Amino acid sequence: MTLKIALLGFGTVASGVPLILEQNSEKINQLTQKSISISKILVRDEQEKSRLMALGHNYHFVTDIEEILADEEISVVVELIGRIEPAKTFITKALESKKHVVSANKDLIALHDKELLAIARQNKVSFYYEAAVAGGIPILRTLSQSLISDKITRVLGVLNGTSNFMLTKMVEEGWTYEKALQTAQELGYAESDPTNDVEGIDAAYKLVILSQFAFGMTIDYKDVIHQGITSITPQDVTYAQTHGYVIKLVGSIEETKSGLAVEVAPSFLPENHPLARVNDVMNAVYIESIGIGESMYYGPGAGQKPTATSVVADLMTLSNEVATVGEAKLFNNFNRPTKIAKLEDNQSAYYFSIALSSGDKVALTDFLKNEGITVKEFELEKSSNDETLAMISTTSITKQVLQHVQQKLAESSDYQLINAFRILGD
Amino acid sequence: MTLKIALLGFGTVASGVPLILEQNSEKINQLTQKSISISKILVRDEQEKSRLMALGHNYHFVTDIEEILADEEISVVVELIGRIEPAKTFITKALESKKHVVSANKDLIALHDKELLAIARQNKVSFYYEAAVAGGIPILRTLSQSLISDKITRVLGVLNGTSNFMLTKMVEEGWTYEKALQTAQELGYAESDPTNDVEGIDAAYKLVILSQFAFGMTIDYKDVIHQGITSITPQDVTYAQTHGYVIKLVGSIEETKSGLAVEVAPSFLPENHPLARVNDVMNAVYIESIGIGESMYYGPGAGQKPTATSVVADLMTLSNEVATVGEAKLFNNFNRPTKIAKLEDNQSAYYFSIALSSGDKVALTDFLKNEGITVKEFELEKSSNDETLAMISTTSITKQVLQHVQQKLAESSDYQLINAFRILGD
Ligand SMILES: NC(=O)c1ccc[n+]([C@@H]2O[C@H](COP(=O)([O-])OP(=O)(O)OC[C@H]3O[C@@H](n4cnc5c(N)ncnc54)[C@H](OP(=O)(O)O)[C@@H]3O)[C@@H](O)[C@H]2O)c1
Ligand SMILES: NC(=O)c1ccc[n+]([C@@H]2O[C@H](COP(=O)([O-])OP(=O)(O)OC[C@H]3O[C@@H](n4cnc5c(N)ncnc54)[C@H](OP(=O)(O)O)[C@@H]3O)[C@@H](O)[C@H]2O)c1
Repeated sequence: MTLKIALLGFGTVASGVPLILEQNSEKINQLTQKSISISKILVRDEQEKSRLMALGHNYHFVTDIEEILADEEISVVVELIGRIEPAKTFITKALESKKHVVSANKDLIALHDKELLAIARQNKVSFYYEAAVAGGIPILRTLSQSLISDKITRVLGVLNGTSNFMLTKMVEEGWTYEKALQTAQELGYAESDPTNDVEGIDAAYKLVILSQFAFGMTIDYKDVIHQGITSITPQDVTYAQTHGYVIKLVGSIEETKSGLAVEVAPSFLPENHPLARVNDVMNAVYIESIGIGESMYYGPGAGQKPTATSVVADLMTLSNEVATVGEAKLFNNFNRPTKIAKLEDNQSAYYFSIALSSGDKVALTDFLKNEGITVKEFELEKSSNDETLAMISTTSITKQVLQHVQQKLAESSDYQLINAFRILGD
Repeated sequence: MTLKIALLGFGTVASGVPLILEQNSEKINQLTQKSISISKILVRDEQEKSRLMALGHNYHFVTDIEEILADEEISVVVELIGRIEPAKTFITKALESKKHVVSANKDLIALHDKELLAIARQNKVSFYYEAAVAGGIPILRTLSQSLISDKITRVLGVLNGTSNFMLTKMVEEGWTYEKALQTAQELGYAESDPTNDVEGIDAAYKLVILSQFAFGMTIDYKDVIHQGITSITPQDVTYAQTHGYVIKLVGSIEETKSGLAVEVAPSFLPENHPLARVNDVMNAVYIESIGIGESMYYGPGAGQKPTATSVVADLMTLSNEVATVGEAKLFNNFNRPTKIAKLEDNQSAYYFSIALSSGDKVALTDFLKNEGITVKEFELEKSSNDETLAMISTTSITKQVLQHVQQKLAESSDYQLINAFRILGD
């Protein structure tokens, strides 16, 4: 018996799928009740088809999605084109043609999951996307199956390999943001337009998906507070280091009494925190829960083979479910009413760097105290352009207090807020 | 609909099961198609029954296993007594009575899995034991489901919380082995007879189980080379640190060309290796594979709640399988002919500490060279009892060469081998 599949796109990840199926065929054949075979591959146009065939690729390439949809032998469509359109239309049509769908498309799933999952349910087919979050780390299936018995209270993740590579170089080698970005681009880790990676957008998409699996809530992407790494200065890095912290771009989901607080932001992690050692392009998801307590899942967040391995795991799961259960399963069954935390329930300790017209510690401390902020540590430094810089760590404050002080600082002529980063895990 | 279960034993882990079922009931009820209820609990005798009821435990306690076996409403038996007998007899009878079994008993499963799994298969019932390896880390189900598509080449694990706690103190605080053991006993981490933990026996059991899930091979416990932490000296710890390593008790399974090399031994890990930061009672399993590359799974290796959470995950999986598939599933489907690595294919770099009658570097280097061992670094020190100690790191050697040099050193009157530890991950 054979499970016939079609690939949409034949880029980095898609071309890794036959690679994994071949390199690991012995184990895959033993563990799938139906063997997996690639019937058709959709490519953009005739030119691309000719190019791939000239390279020796011996697949049935097609340029019209209808050829795949109409093929009744194909029971799974694997979408690896990326972005929203035409991926969304193709997935919709595949589900409506009663084909199971596997995808790695975090952007699409984060923005349109409700709609797509409803179509999958109506058509009684499965929609799996293990590779969409942290490429090679099998975090989604672990959450929905192994952590099924646990109540998760907080998730912290290093979820973007590009920005983590850059931050690792900034922290360990003292590189500037600009040098780190240039090197990431030279090494092929960052695209020519790095916005999604460095602004925390990619990580925010992943938090939307993680929220469903870890907390049963379907967050709107616009409810994810996100801030990137572009404003981090060498002074911030040094301050963190001398105070026992490492700066990472951390995506966090925390259940407060009013709902979920979901945020991506540069964050200070204590240097002995398990996430603090996750370096270069590696990713990790750190989970706090009432049963297990603390656990962490670490691996490559991207790359052809790791991502294709997750795609093939979805395919094998489908192959076995089709053979034994004969029916669709939901990837995630956990559903609760979605609630977003009120600003006053969302709290954290903070690090502020503030440029000053005069180096008056007492005045600034009082200014902050007036806003309800208690200063824990206070240091004065010279910034690179010779301004006086106050570097401050605070006790825990709410987002409401934070927003208020940000506004007050913006109105003040004495102070200019340079950065405000969370201090986590103390 | 209700899944009725019985607990065998009501000790640390077993009494955590109702705790997790209650504390996390909202999620558990939503995610199980049959709710889980504890029908009967087997305790040792009437006295224990009275004691527990006097404490306010309101369960149906029984003292005869037959009362559970004869109860047709009970479909799952959860064995949490530990050790070999009577656990083995009870599990066998439960399986023969067509009851699914969940257990956390690594000793029993490592030694008698073939027999018990055959009985489960014959009787078409499931036998799950996620909690048997690394308590709160969901490593077994992750291996059998998420890493299904990957070919694993090496597994390294910090698998024993007690010895890891002791080593962490020896490394970070400079404690002696004796002080570390005494503290572990005072804190309740080590039993009064700590043999299984400190001699690597407990970790060896876990390697037997991991070998099945990661490599599809059923290793005999006696084929696991194991060495504990009792001989580690402060000099070893210091040498490791000054050369950029951390000493951990590492369980390793590696596929060589002739078969699996399976070993538990104190090992030098480079200090930036992900496992090197796994401290105190935490456990982790680090996996090298052709698809994902490297990944790590980190969490508590023991403790009431983490272990009970894994037991409840097995119960929920069973509950859903009983409701939908209606039939037993194997926990692990991966099976290959078992092969043990030849000594000459099992290789590693080594650290030796050798007591000398004279401090002649050249003579010892030549002695080792004659055995086919190339010295990479060589240092002379005074040991605590004022002997001269050579501390040496070698390039990679085979176990055959190792055994030969161990014998030669034993025969020599000039040298006495104190310790030989692997240097991993270079
Ligand atoms: N790369 C990773 O490590 C990684 C990790 C996790 C998740 N993902 C996700 O996996 C997906 C694929 O990523 P990727 O890195 O493989 O991207 P990629 O290398 O850019 O591949 C996408 C392929 O789709 C083709 N394509 C675009 N429009 C098409 C159309 N209308 N019809 C047919 N083919 C079309 C592209 O062709 P052209 O080149 O002609 O446009 C390209 O070959 C994305 O959703 C991404 O977010 C990737
Ligand atoms: N504790 C952990 O963190 C952990 C982690 C992973 C796996 N495990 C495994 O989980 C299992 C249970 O461990 P545990 O820590 O819960 O041990 P435990 O606290 O010693 O509990 C075992 C219980 O079984 C009872 N018992 C012994 N013989 C019995 C019999 N014939 N009939 C009825 N009850 C009997 C014992 O009673 P008495 O006290 O009267 O002997 C005791 O209450 C073991 O296999 C262990 O290896 C434990």
